[in-house]
Amino acid sequence: MSGASLAIDVSKVHGADQFSQADDVAVEEPLEIQVCAPSADESAAKSVSITMRTPGDDAELSLGFLFTEGIITAPDQVASVAHCGPEASDGGFRNVIRVELNPGVKVDLDRLTRHFYTTSSCGVCGKASLDALRVAGQQPLTGVKTRFSREGLVALPDKLRARQEVFSRTGGLHAAAVFNPDGEITLVREDVGRHNAVDKVIGALLMAGSLPAHELGLLVSGRASFELMQKALVAGLPLLAAVGAPSSLAVSLAKEFDMTLIGFLRRGNFNIYSRAERLA
Amino acid sequence: MSGASLAIDVSKVHGADQFSQADDVAVEEPLEIQVCAPSADESAAKSVSITMRTPGDDAELSLGFLFTEGIITAPDQVASVAHCGPEASDGGFRNVIRVELNPGVKVDLDRLTRHFYTTSSCGVCGKASLDALRVAGQQPLTGVKTRFSREGLVALPDKLRARQEVFSRTGGLHAAAVFNPDGEITLVREDVGRHNAVDKVIGALLMAGSLPAHELGLLVSGRASFELMQKALVAGLPLLAAVGAPSSLAVSLAKEFDMTLIGFLRRGNFNIYSRAERLA
Repeated sequence: MSGASLAIDVSKVHGADQFSQADDVAVEEPLEIQVCAPSADESAAKSVSITMRTPGDDAELSLGFLFTEGIITAPDQVASVAHCGPEASDGGFRNVIRVELNPGVKVDLDRLTRHFYTTSSCGVCGKASLDALRVAGQQPLTGVKTRFSREGLVALPDKLRARQEVFSRTGGLHAAAVFNPDGEITLVREDVGRHNAVDKVIGALLMAGSLPAHELGLLVSGRASFELMQKALVAGLPLLAAVGAPSSLAVSLAKEFDMTLIGFLRRGNFNIYSRAERLA
Repeated sequence: MSGASLAIDVSKVHGADQFSQADDVAVEEPLEIQVCAPSADESAAKSVSITMRTPGDDAELSLGFLFTEGIITAPDQVASVAHCGPEASDGGFRNVIRVELNPGVKVDLDRLTRHFYTTSSCGVCGKASLDALRVAGQQPLTGVKTRFSREGLVALPDKLRARQEVFSRTGGLHAAAVFNPDGEITLVREDVGRHNAVDKVIGALLMAGSLPAHELGLLVSGRASFELMQKALVAGLPLLAAVGAPSSLAVSLAKEFDMTLIGFLRRGNFNIYSRAERLA
């Protein structure tokens, strides 16, 4: 991930000492995601999202976002993904990316404004958020019988940290990874945004034709929220393991959709919030 | 903050041991924020945001959000803030809140779709994000001469932790606080979302008539992103101190708007990224 960090001058205060030093910070830049029909002229491209992200893996991020938001459902719907617009900003980043869809592919961009969190029956509440996922066609992962090694699980945080290249320089990035039943990490992505790191991982799986990913678990360096569980569900990942705490609605989603949720995975210990039977 | 955490049954794995135990998780529920004219009928209320938040301090969250997004600019524009809609969800949470504006107050709700991150001149990039803040009328805080105690600063993380009531039970909440030049914390708010915790603090200051808050610093339990710096700027807070790392664009914003940015504030040490002269 070149361009993911930037050296700047910092004043460091260590107790009574103060000194200047060059230090790396994680790069945060906006990315605009556009969607259009193939060979459409520029004015036909529709802007669907602007997210603050760490540059790198922008194609994966875009496709992961569109997939987990339910806009696209398969990689063969996509004709091309490429940066466009102004050549490069001051920092050398290209911050507009356009996803061209194949002929005949119809997408429902209004999904992005009709939130997952609300239904017409009861308005907005946690229960409605779960119901809305069902309405959107998401099925419980009850039939997914993959078993993950406990020993593999507890070794994951150290393996993740060892592979967080940009974090190790900047201390400023979230990470997401997928791992197999033995606890081997097969893919890691980093970003200033938790949801972006997960979108990058899922986008990479989508581009590789590896979705639904019933044989993999998702690991996140922070906390487990409703939004991250939802992304794991849409990608068919039967297990989410978080180094941090889960929220109440993440636990509810996991139970309702038969997903395994692990929290506080650190120092050899962890909590199981749902579907412990997937741990071997 | 009653309703901010929820006890659930968890399987705890400690090394070779596994046992069941009731444990608290942080509550995450959607909140819909509506804006309308006074005494408008229900259909005239416009939904401006749905955010996943921890219930509690919903009025502060709503006003802080509307203020930091530039929708409202003063507390006297607001006639009332109250929950509305369905009585309560299963969990007992009321998840729709309506902000009634005073007669004659004009707001520009389209600001929410015209992002801060883009300008017509150069499209979308970090520089454009900063320019857009200027276009929105934000001035550098050059004239703010408040000086903050270094000793007070290094003592802040322990003071914050001691006041994080829900975090101490759940491990699952971000915190934001404001502190005076001596390093005394005057207000703390918690939320599953970083930005929500900051909106709650700024909303509380707005309701108390304490904005712009030129005599206070903002403390956040996590990292410093562009979005959090932007909220501090709009509230007139001349200093942001983060326990975690800053992003590149947070540093750029701080320099461009003459704000003091402190990062990695922990164990008696910290980094100064801009305007060190505000530290006494």
